[in-house]
Amino acid sequence: MEALERTVSHIRDVAPDAVIIGDAKRGDIGPSARAYAKAMFGFWDFDAVTVNAWGGSDSIEPFLEDPTRGVFVWCRGSNPGSGDFQDLLVDGKGEGTPLYEAMARACADWNTSGNIGLVVGATVPGQLAAVRSLCPDMPLLIPGVGAQGGELESAVRAGCDSKGRLALINSSRGVIYASPSADFASAASEAASRLRDSINHVLEQDGLGWLSS
Amino acid sequence: MEALERTVSHIRDVAPDAVIIGDAKRGDIGPSARAYAKAMFGFWDFDAVTVNAWGGSDSIEPFLEDPTRGVFVWCRGSNPGSGDFQDLLVDGKGEGTPLYEAMARACADWNTSGNIGLVVGATVPGQLAAVRSLCPDMPLLIPGVGAQGGELESAVRAGCDSKGRLALINSSRGVIYASPSADFASAASEAASRLRDSINHVLEQDGLGWLSS
Repeated sequence: MEALERTVSHIRDVAPDAVIIGDAKRGDIGPSARAYAKAMFGFWDFDAVTVNAWGGSDSIEPFLEDPTRGVFVWCRGSNPGSGDFQDLLVDGKGEGTPLYEAMARACADWNTSGNIGLVVGATVPGQLAAVRSLCPDMPLLIPGVGAQGGELESAVRAGCDSKGRLALINSSRGVIYASPSADFASAASEAASRLRDSINHVLEQDGLGWLSS
Repeated sequence: MEALERTVSHIRDVAPDAVIIGDAKRGDIGPSARAYAKAMFGFWDFDAVTVNAWGGSDSIEPFLEDPTRGVFVWCRGSNPGSGDFQDLLVDGKGEGTPLYEAMARACADWNTSGNIGLVVGATVPGQLAAVRSLCPDMPLLIPGVGAQGGELESAVRAGCDSKGRLALINSSRGVIYASPSADFASAASEAASRLRDSINHVLEQDGLGWLSS
């Protein structure tokens, strides 16, 4: 808790415009969700959080109330077990929809304040493209490049919107564990810069770079 | 955190045989689940925890490693939104199985150390009976009586095993908020005793009481 507090405080000092996402994947019934929202936004002052919406609408509703705070719902994970339930076909419109698509559709319905995003893994580019197609204007938080081995190029192409934006491609362990030695700070900085440059390189190739747009 | 620490410590002092369940519904990818398991069992020393298995097998595996600790997986909740996803029909064996039953079956498969239980709400006696029938020997943690308004009698009959055991019928807010006044401690004690007596009364009626068995 102290390390987290100092980390948040340091980021606010040196990069006041940086968006801080509290990746805690909270998911509980309404009254508990309300207390978690108070902790994540009121106490920790995160700009956005990740949530686990297995419990349905009332488990995420308290997080949505402040339209200035973002909520990334865990839709289709990057981890090995994510397919166990999230890829099951459910009775939807038509033939049977994968559960992660049902989650994306529910989130689109709940998104009346425009502050919902979705977590979809870089390790599953097919699912990532499907979610992007269902939710063309929603921010996607994309873990799984770096330590988890997802392919960056396909993640950028499948995850971005038509303008090459709205994808937050995240590397956690690939950055914070970039070096086990005393040079960990510079190694982390280099790993983060390399990832940024690789993302921007794909965007440039597609004519969607930050300078060309 | 301090209140929780003092509460756990007090229970260990006055009721060393009581089972303490950390109802935190943690659910994240494998490496994060491992850190949460360490926190819940190693730091907090809870006897059992609740988990949210939306992330699939690797999101609960680290919790299962110590066979002396229990893991209650959130299967079918008591809250209003629980049906949003948990009741969806999935392509299973045969005609389509509700997702909560797919969760119960997966947990039965994962239960090689015999330390998994399931959370199923008292507010949904049909689903409770279905889970009990699928998992005849598994402990069920049953929230939703008391503050959430579930019917106690049907919860006892649908949730217990054939011997009238293995159901943990839980009231949280109904006990801790039994009185807003200075008598909160005695009011909580009375609320807990009343609930226990009501459960036992149903078991007695069915010839499954603690003395008669």
